[in-house]
Amino acid sequence: MRNLTMLTDLYELTMLSGYRRHGMEDRQAVFYMFYRGASELSYAVMAGNEQFKDYVLNLHFSPEDIGYLRSLNIFEEGFLKSLADFRFEGDIDIMPEGAIVFPGEPMVRVRAPLSQAQLIESAMLNLIGHQTLIATKGNRVARAAKGDRVMEFGLRRAQGPDAGVLGARAAVIGGCYSTSNVMAGQHFGIPVSGTHAHSWVMSFESELAAFRAYAQDFPNSCLLLVDTYDTLRSGVPNAIKVFEELKAQGMRPLGIRLDSGDLAYLSKEARRMLDAAGFPDTIIVASNDLDEFLIRDLKQQGARIDLWGVGTKLITSAGRFALGGVYKMSALEEDGKLVPKMKMSDNPEKITLPGDHEVYRLYDQDNMAIADLIALKDEVIDFTQPLTIFHPQDTWKKMRLENYSARKLLTPLIRAGQAAGKNPSLLEIKRYREQEEATIWEQHLRLVNPQPYKVDLSDRLWQLREDLIHGQEDGREG
Amino acid sequence: MRNLTMLTDLYELTMLSGYRRHGMEDRQAVFYMFYRGASELSYAVMAGNEQFKDYVLNLHFSPEDIGYLRSLNIFEEGFLKSLADFRFEGDIDIMPEGAIVFPGEPMVRVRAPLSQAQLIESAMLNLIGHQTLIATKGNRVARAAKGDRVMEFGLRRAQGPDAGVLGARAAVIGGCYSTSNVMAGQHFGIPVSGTHAHSWVMSFESELAAFRAYAQDFPNSCLLLVDTYDTLRSGVPNAIKVFEELKAQGMRPLGIRLDSGDLAYLSKEARRMLDAAGFPDTIIVASNDLDEFLIRDLKQQGARIDLWGVGTKLITSAGRFALGGVYKMSALEEDGKLVPKMKMSDNPEKITLPGDHEVYRLYDQDNMAIADLIALKDEVIDFTQPLTIFHPQDTWKKMRLENYSARKLLTPLIRAGQAAGKNPSLLEIKRYREQEEATIWEQHLRLVNPQPYKVDLSDRLWQLREDLIHGQEDGREG
Repeated sequence: MRNLTMLTDLYELTMLSGYRRHGMEDRQAVFYMFYRGASELSYAVMAGNEQFKDYVLNLHFSPEDIGYLRSLNIFEEGFLKSLADFRFEGDIDIMPEGAIVFPGEPMVRVRAPLSQAQLIESAMLNLIGHQTLIATKGNRVARAAKGDRVMEFGLRRAQGPDAGVLGARAAVIGGCYSTSNVMAGQHFGIPVSGTHAHSWVMSFESELAAFRAYAQDFPNSCLLLVDTYDTLRSGVPNAIKVFEELKAQGMRPLGIRLDSGDLAYLSKEARRMLDAAGFPDTIIVASNDLDEFLIRDLKQQGARIDLWGVGTKLITSAGRFALGGVYKMSALEEDGKLVPKMKMSDNPEKITLPGDHEVYRLYDQDNMAIADLIALKDEVIDFTQPLTIFHPQDTWKKMRLENYSARKLLTPLIRAGQAAGKNPSLLEIKRYREQEEATIWEQHLRLVNPQPYKVDLSDRLWQLREDLIHGQEDGREG
Repeated sequence: MRNLTMLTDLYELTMLSGYRRHGMEDRQAVFYMFYRGASELSYAVMAGNEQFKDYVLNLHFSPEDIGYLRSLNIFEEGFLKSLADFRFEGDIDIMPEGAIVFPGEPMVRVRAPLSQAQLIESAMLNLIGHQTLIATKGNRVARAAKGDRVMEFGLRRAQGPDAGVLGARAAVIGGCYSTSNVMAGQHFGIPVSGTHAHSWVMSFESELAAFRAYAQDFPNSCLLLVDTYDTLRSGVPNAIKVFEELKAQGMRPLGIRLDSGDLAYLSKEARRMLDAAGFPDTIIVASNDLDEFLIRDLKQQGARIDLWGVGTKLITSAGRFALGGVYKMSALEEDGKLVPKMKMSDNPEKITLPGDHEVYRLYDQDNMAIADLIALKDEVIDFTQPLTIFHPQDTWKKMRLENYSARKLLTPLIRAGQAAGKNPSLLEIKRYREQEEATIWEQHLRLVNPQPYKVDLSDRLWQLREDLIHGQEDGREG
């Protein structure tokens, strides 16, 4: 396992040295991670928990790491020595991988001694932020494909090796079926797929010879890339010739791949040609700068595409390049008591939530999600009784719930520094995501201009925040 | 060193198995990598060579890798066994790291047995594409800052660990000064910087107490984040109090950091307050969703910012999420002779260059670059004589050069599978980039609507391409 302990921003370490110097390092702290919304992220698909967990369990500074930090000449020797024994010993609760998450609500909750809770910030935001971003993009792409299979093949355009490998994992969590990425297949058991490139065709004396050679190599899974020279005048006719030869040998050809040109027109023409030649069962795979919007439009225009290969725009989440996750302190032990903390801001959406939280999802009788409710951990809410929820800014927007049920969303990932439970398999995660997605109304998952899902605060949490905003509890401005 | 051998698309391996089966694996092939232009990529800063080189030198399939490939049930046993001995034994030439590269011209040239040249495609495009993308973004950001130092601090928003660490390396090649990323500092010797987060301020009973504690810890490098509660009414006045206390102890405070709000207004007000309090030498660091355009605008509006912290939009290359690099075959041995190959396309810009190439940069007498010329490797051009160059599509656009000089741009990276020469240090690469950048006219480096730099073809290469386009050389359409 790679040791990612040094995958941190320097300021985490300068703060740790300060907390130690001021005797604060072991004060119990509560932090939470959330993301700020945007149109393309009206919801997100949680991912990256497994890698984040590995990172936390493996957290330790090697002698070389400490030697490097010493060489910076900014840390006291006592602090550097203390790093040799640094471990994460706290608790982490998290939305399970595959969960549908909404802006502003705690996705991860950390309760740990201050220094331990602080240090894990950078790697958490990196690992969970990245995979959640790509899982969400993968979900949008898969939703646009409406049940057609989607292959992820962005490795070559990914932002580095991890972006390719972990991105493939995330894309599958989001709803993609397979990947071109062999390393991702090997590590995560994702189905791998791929046929041949233009260079294969260019390596033979003719396109027909290249197709024949490929058919000979893969007689049972013969899928031919038909756009090296001219899709309709050369590629498809040559593919049909080879398919006829395969048929004569009793084999069933798989289909063709289009990788350029107008995919709507070409797929319809190619379909017509394949059908007329007696190959109605062959499939048409398409790729070329696809994303959720282009797939939606192509389907609307009647494109005859059975399988979508999505590369660059999926693996980089084009259009929304980062989740924008943040990690904020919400409570800190003072004189043996946990005191709520909050970051103020001129922008009301940027004010953080004080206290130690629990997140509940409220369901109607058909098991469709109505809203999420963020409450204080020690708050007892009787969910058997009717409940009135209200918008945290526009408090006149109220809703009274009866005959509903509630479920806690945060689940244990780490307890006292140890793994809490086993990691689910990727297939289990994918199934979980399918189930969860089915409980969210379509309007919240819409590609464009989605209806915001309700994330409300309990009365007590709302009141606590109001009190802190109005400065009734302390004199932070001093 | 991480073994990235399996960082490949499955189709590379299906093609390799086919090349072997058809006895073509050892045919000599020439491939080249280039990128297709776009406004934000009118030029690019080459980066990633070192990691690509490590990958090639370390290329080998482990027994576990071969076992995994066997489990896919698509490969012949003979092919799987042959992978155990697979090594890269060819030659690779490349634009040096830090070179200024233009769309369409060979950045990497590979001459190797067909299977070896083919396999390295995915990892090459990933490693070089990613770092070149970020180095270019880093260059644009640094150019907008016009000599002010730029800190890279996007780790938490990077697309995975590698994107953070290799991205920091690339940003520095492009022109950034330091990084917040400790792992990047450790691996690459990049200066690391960072102070404290909002959580530090929230951990103390007041902002003033937090600033005092920080000043005590770092009396000689005291830089305070002033926007946790209210920048001008709380943060800056508290910072000034602490700076006065430091001054009384004979220390020199470093400055403040702004991380929200209107950076133009706040920096001017904060500067005025700091100056009035007798701290004209303190610096103002700014961050918050910066990119090259916002930095340019803030400078134009007279923002008093000395040091720029750039995170998300640099480390993800927001606005241009991938370099769009491609790798194409340009020649292949047939009957002992290297035959030029070319990929056709309906789109003239997408037609590739046939043959084995050399790239020359032509300079005027002031050592400013005039144009790049792509020629055939075996072509002898007398650069002591006047030269007429012309646009490869609009051939009436001609230019006659006298009193110019020419320099070959591709340099050896790998020879017969072995490293050719030592890796330059990051500082050497950065200096090389500065030198190279100084030879390119400003209009080609402009942030918006840059003037395209001339990349022309030699007469012979142009003619070869014309011949192949008009099908005079062979009957590929068959």
